[in-house]
Amino acid sequence: MDANPVLAETVRGNWVENLHRGAYAVVDAEGTIIASAGDIERAIFPRSAIKSMQALPIFARHADEQFHHTSEELALACASHHGEDVHVNTAAGLLSRLGLSVADLECGAHQPTNNAAREALRAVGAEPSALHNNCSGKHSGMLSVAVAMGIPTAGYVGREHEVQKQVRAAVEAVIGEPLTEGKCGTDGCSIPTFAAPLRAFAYGFARMATGKGIAPELGTAARRLFDAATSHPHLVAGTGHADTLIMQAFNGRLMQKVGAEGVQCGAIRDKGWGYALKCDDGNIAASQAMLAGLLLKIADPDEAQRAVLQKWATQPINNVRGAEVGMMRTLT
Amino acid sequence: MDANPVLAETVRGNWVENLHRGAYAVVDAEGTIIASAGDIERAIFPRSAIKSMQALPIFARHADEQFHHTSEELALACASHHGEDVHVNTAAGLLSRLGLSVADLECGAHQPTNNAAREALRAVGAEPSALHNNCSGKHSGMLSVAVAMGIPTAGYVGREHEVQKQVRAAVEAVIGEPLTEGKCGTDGCSIPTFAAPLRAFAYGFARMATGKGIAPELGTAARRLFDAATSHPHLVAGTGHADTLIMQAFNGRLMQKVGAEGVQCGAIRDKGWGYALKCDDGNIAASQAMLAGLLLKIADPDEAQRAVLQKWATQPINNVRGAEVGMMRTLT
Repeated sequence: MDANPVLAETVRGNWVENLHRGAYAVVDAEGTIIASAGDIERAIFPRSAIKSMQALPIFARHADEQFHHTSEELALACASHHGEDVHVNTAAGLLSRLGLSVADLECGAHQPTNNAAREALRAVGAEPSALHNNCSGKHSGMLSVAVAMGIPTAGYVGREHEVQKQVRAAVEAVIGEPLTEGKCGTDGCSIPTFAAPLRAFAYGFARMATGKGIAPELGTAARRLFDAATSHPHLVAGTGHADTLIMQAFNGRLMQKVGAEGVQCGAIRDKGWGYALKCDDGNIAASQAMLAGLLLKIADPDEAQRAVLQKWATQPINNVRGAEVGMMRTLT
Repeated sequence: MDANPVLAETVRGNWVENLHRGAYAVVDAEGTIIASAGDIERAIFPRSAIKSMQALPIFARHADEQFHHTSEELALACASHHGEDVHVNTAAGLLSRLGLSVADLECGAHQPTNNAAREALRAVGAEPSALHNNCSGKHSGMLSVAVAMGIPTAGYVGREHEVQKQVRAAVEAVIGEPLTEGKCGTDGCSIPTFAAPLRAFAYGFARMATGKGIAPELGTAARRLFDAATSHPHLVAGTGHADTLIMQAFNGRLMQKVGAEGVQCGAIRDKGWGYALKCDDGNIAASQAMLAGLLLKIADPDEAQRAVLQKWATQPINNVRGAEVGMMRTLT
């Protein structure tokens, strides 16, 4: 297998220090490859980059009709959030309407990603709960599916639980590929993650963005989720995060989501294109540089959008005393 | 340029998630290549992996005769330490004998790498000082050179300061290659770092381990530094660190040092071999997996040494709830 191309690098002084290889695909809803680099047929774990796909059963199983998820709750279902108050409260609010509590979340607890939120917890001597887990919105959404289906919620993270079967079927429906146990792992938040070709995830986002090639109900559900996420970018990540700032700058045109280990997926909604990108070595900052380079090329950014993307296309590297000694930069 | 080979990978469930490429060279003091992978002529920044080389001017400039550095202080000069009490106190002790203080360190302050040390500082509401900087031993050693030379210490981190000229000359002498401004950057602790071929660093460690091909005084100095580091592995890194535990297990046979951005350098002293390894993407855990795989192959480990190396050759990956969901593993 040929190596994927170097799509980002770090420079220290006047010499390249690190190389980051990767692949990306930009695809339309007919499956036409608009742009690509590297091996786009290799199966990759999409991780959290496809939370919007994993949220589709909220509509397929009519949980939305029963619990009337707010736009904010739908955005949070698509999120890897930073554990700020608004994220925690939004997740807690949906759980409460479901007649459930934090004790029903099976994602585990971790410290808030956001520094200020972490320090605020420390200041009062509090431990983080599962509500602070960046996936608590996705999990609350999955719990709403279980409750709507009238089935026990316990064990909803398991691959054989009906909720995960619904999630898997929804992802398969939009990406147009079967997901198999032969390429399956467990995500950080304990739900299954299935590997599939990079190209297929781009294709799935294009179909979600356009509604083309998928059942009308799926298309409607996808539009509601993308509308929610792009209307509430702060809920999808948090203060200062690339996804939040980039989606804010694109003002609804762009659905963008990071996944662990250097995955970036999304859709340029007005063009009807989906994209998927994976940094081979899992480096998040490098994948953000690659993403910014890609969006600069294909997303027709205006000047303000270009300025935001530049923050990730070229990221300064500072030493302990704060001097700028190098940079991470896109070669995409 | 061909891509370097994949020397480590992460697996999630039953599918490979990340690839880590790299290169390594194992060289004897005559320059014979004992083993290698990838492009060993490409210049890499060695970063902290060559602190033992950078400590050579302590002897070349006779600072040792004036200040009688202890074995512990010499080990700390070769260290990227964890900011535990013993590290901080050892650095402070040398500074005091020099008639200097923490205010003379120009490495900058950062939180201790060691969790318990970091929490202990927080518990008393104290800020970390430059003594907690992982490089404070190296910097104290460099200050001893300046004082022994009778020159102002201020600005000793600058490329044009006499101390850094001495450091540069010492590194050039052992690696047998010129260091050039054309491949130069600033390290995290503000001193210059020069890129040179990976092979040359391995060669330098072989010459330091054997004294062959270098001036007798350099050979003596190198032996004192390697003896110090291998006698006090805890001072070279800290509690639980790979370098500390691996050097302890090898009981003097092995000099091992990590550098930032996935560099690993050292010497198998009884064989007279030096080695240098760089993970292309800068991932430290991957470089440790590569290192462990390399040492398992070339260092003739006994059963106990093998058991320690295995901890880094295959590193479990756990999810938020603590379940083992994958692994980082060497392919070296």
